[in-house]
Amino acid sequence: MTTTCAIGLDVGGTKIAGGVIDADGRILHRIQIPSPADKGTDTTLAALLELVDRMRTRHPEVASIGVGAAGMITWPSGRILTAPNNAYRDLPLQDLLGEHTGLPAVVENDANAAAWAEARLGGGAGYRNVVAVTVGTGVGGGLILDGALFRGQSGFGAEIGHLVVDPGGNVRCGCGSVGCLEAHASGTALGRRGREVAATDPAGQLATLAGGADRVTGETVFAAARQGDSTARGLFDELGYWLGAGLAGLVNVFDPQVVIIGGGLVAAGDYLYPPTHNSFRTHVFAGPHRTLPPIIPARLGEDAGLVGAALLAMERQPALAA
Amino acid sequence: MTTTCAIGLDVGGTKIAGGVIDADGRILHRIQIPSPADKGTDTTLAALLELVDRMRTRHPEVASIGVGAAGMITWPSGRILTAPNNAYRDLPLQDLLGEHTGLPAVVENDANAAAWAEARLGGGAGYRNVVAVTVGTGVGGGLILDGALFRGQSGFGAEIGHLVVDPGGNVRCGCGSVGCLEAHASGTALGRRGREVAATDPAGQLATLAGGADRVTGETVFAAARQGDSTARGLFDELGYWLGAGLAGLVNVFDPQVVIIGGGLVAAGDYLYPPTHNSFRTHVFAGPHRTLPPIIPARLGEDAGLVGAALLAMERQPALAA
Repeated sequence: MTTTCAIGLDVGGTKIAGGVIDADGRILHRIQIPSPADKGTDTTLAALLELVDRMRTRHPEVASIGVGAAGMITWPSGRILTAPNNAYRDLPLQDLLGEHTGLPAVVENDANAAAWAEARLGGGAGYRNVVAVTVGTGVGGGLILDGALFRGQSGFGAEIGHLVVDPGGNVRCGCGSVGCLEAHASGTALGRRGREVAATDPAGQLATLAGGADRVTGETVFAAARQGDSTARGLFDELGYWLGAGLAGLVNVFDPQVVIIGGGLVAAGDYLYPPTHNSFRTHVFAGPHRTLPPIIPARLGEDAGLVGAALLAMERQPALAA
Repeated sequence: MTTTCAIGLDVGGTKIAGGVIDADGRILHRIQIPSPADKGTDTTLAALLELVDRMRTRHPEVASIGVGAAGMITWPSGRILTAPNNAYRDLPLQDLLGEHTGLPAVVENDANAAAWAEARLGGGAGYRNVVAVTVGTGVGGGLILDGALFRGQSGFGAEIGHLVVDPGGNVRCGCGSVGCLEAHASGTALGRRGREVAATDPAGQLATLAGGADRVTGETVFAAARQGDSTARGLFDELGYWLGAGLAGLVNVFDPQVVIIGGGLVAAGDYLYPPTHNSFRTHVFAGPHRTLPPIIPARLGEDAGLVGAALLAMERQPALAA
C-alpha cells in the first residue's frame, strides 16, 4: 500500500494555512492560524514548526513538506528574499524546515504552487502548457510549460502581475514600477478607480454605498455593479480590458492550451468575463488563424496554494511504500 | 570521423538564403536567391528544392535540412499557416521537403531559429534561460527555457513583438491589434514617429533629409540622429523607452540569465541602448533584490536564422558516423 502524503503550508501576510494532503490532492486534515504578530523570522519559523508537529501527530506517515509562500523566493534553494506584509528577509526557509523536521522540504512561490494545483487537479489537468492567473488584491500567476512548472533561472519568473502593459501611463504599481498589469487589473486597481470616479460624483452610488468617495474599495465597486450601477459596471469593463490585453500578451508568448483565472475577482465573473474576453480577442496575435485557448475559472479556491505545495513536495520526494 | 552537417535555409519575404552548416555552426557553403516573383507555393518549393540540390551536389554528406521561415508555423509538424509578404498559405513545407529530398527536415519559425543560434553560439552559449529579441522592421524573438527552444503548444509561442505594451493607446500594429511592442519599438515604428514629428516641422532636419515629411523612414531618423539632431535622438529615446518596458515585462515572466538584442536597429545601439537600459531598470520587478540579466547584442547577424535552423535539424537527427 502506498501511503504517500505530504504537508502543505500556505504562508501569507495575514494567515498561515496547513494541510495534510494525499497523492490525489485530497486534504486529510487542515489547520489555520493567524500570522505571528511581529511577522518576524523566529516567530514565523516557530509557528510553522508547531503546525508541522500538530499535523505529524495526526498523520505520522507524512513524508515531505511543501510550502507556498508569498514573496520572492529563490529556486531551487527555497530562500525567501522578500515577502510583502512580512518582516522577514532573506530567510532560508527550505533549509530550516528540513533541518528542524528531518523531512525533505520544498519552498515555492505561493502563486506557482497554486498554479501547479490547478494544472494538476483543476481545469489544467491533462494539459502540458497552462497559464494560470490569480486576480485578487494583486495579480499573480504561474506557468506550466512543456509539462513542468516554470520558475525561470532563479525562481523569479512568472511574475505575471508585473507584465508591463502601460509604461506610457502614470499608474504606479505597488512594486514601485509604472504600468504593471497588477496596477490596472487587480482588486486594488478597482478600488483606486472607484475612488477616482466617486470623487467626481460624490452623490453617486459608489460614494453613497461606501460612506464617502475616499472609502470606496473594490468590494464597493462589486456591490454597486450587482445593484446595476452603470459606473461600477464601466469600471469592470475597464479592468477587463486591461486583463484581456494582459492575457493576450501572455498567450502571444506562451501559446498555452488553456488559461485559468482564479482569485477573489472570479466572484465578479459576470461583470468581468465579457470585457476580458473581448479585449483578449482584440489583442491576441493572429486570432483568425488559430484555435484560441479557452479562458476558464480556477476550481480549487483558497486551498490551491497548500495543495499545490504538497504535490510539489511529493514529486521531489520518491513515494514511500509501506 | 563524424561528418554531421545540415542544410540551413532562411525563407523570408524577399530572399531565400541557404547554407551548408557543420556541427559547430560553421557555414561551409552559402547561396542566396531572391524569392520567386509570385511568392507562391509551387515556385517557392521548386526554388527551395533547387537550392537543396545545389548544396547537396557540393556537400553530399548533408544529413538533414532545417528551415527558418517567416510566418506562423505549426510545431512539431512544420506547416506554414501564414507568411507575411508571401502568397502561400497552409503549406506543409516540412513534409514536402522530406518527401522530395529523402532527408529529415525541420521547419521552424525564423526568429526561433535565429534565437537558437544565438543561444548556442552567440552570447547565450552556456545559458539555460535566454530571451532573444530581434528589433528590425518588426520585432521578433525566441525563448530558450530550461535549456530548450520554447515554442508553446502549437508553435505559436514566443511572439515577442506582440507582447501587448500599450492597449490603452491608439497605435495599430501590422498584425491588426493595438499596442503591440512591435507597433512601438520597431524600425517601422521609428519611421512612423519620424513622419509624425516631421509633419509638425516641415523645415526640420528629418523632413529635409528625407525630401519631405511623408518620406521619412527609420533610416532617416537614424541618419539624423548620427548628425546630432535632437528630435531624432528623442525618437530613439522613445523607442528605447518602449523596448526597455517590453524587455522588463519579458524578464518579469521569464527570469532569463541573459537578454540578447539583435536585428537591424542594433546598429543604432549608441542611441538606443541607454534609454532602453533606463526603461528596463525602471520597469523590471524587484530590481534591487536581484541580479539583473545583462542585455547584450547579438553576434551572428544575418546568418543566425539559417545557422540556427541547421543546428535544430542536426539535433532532431542522430549524428552520422562515417
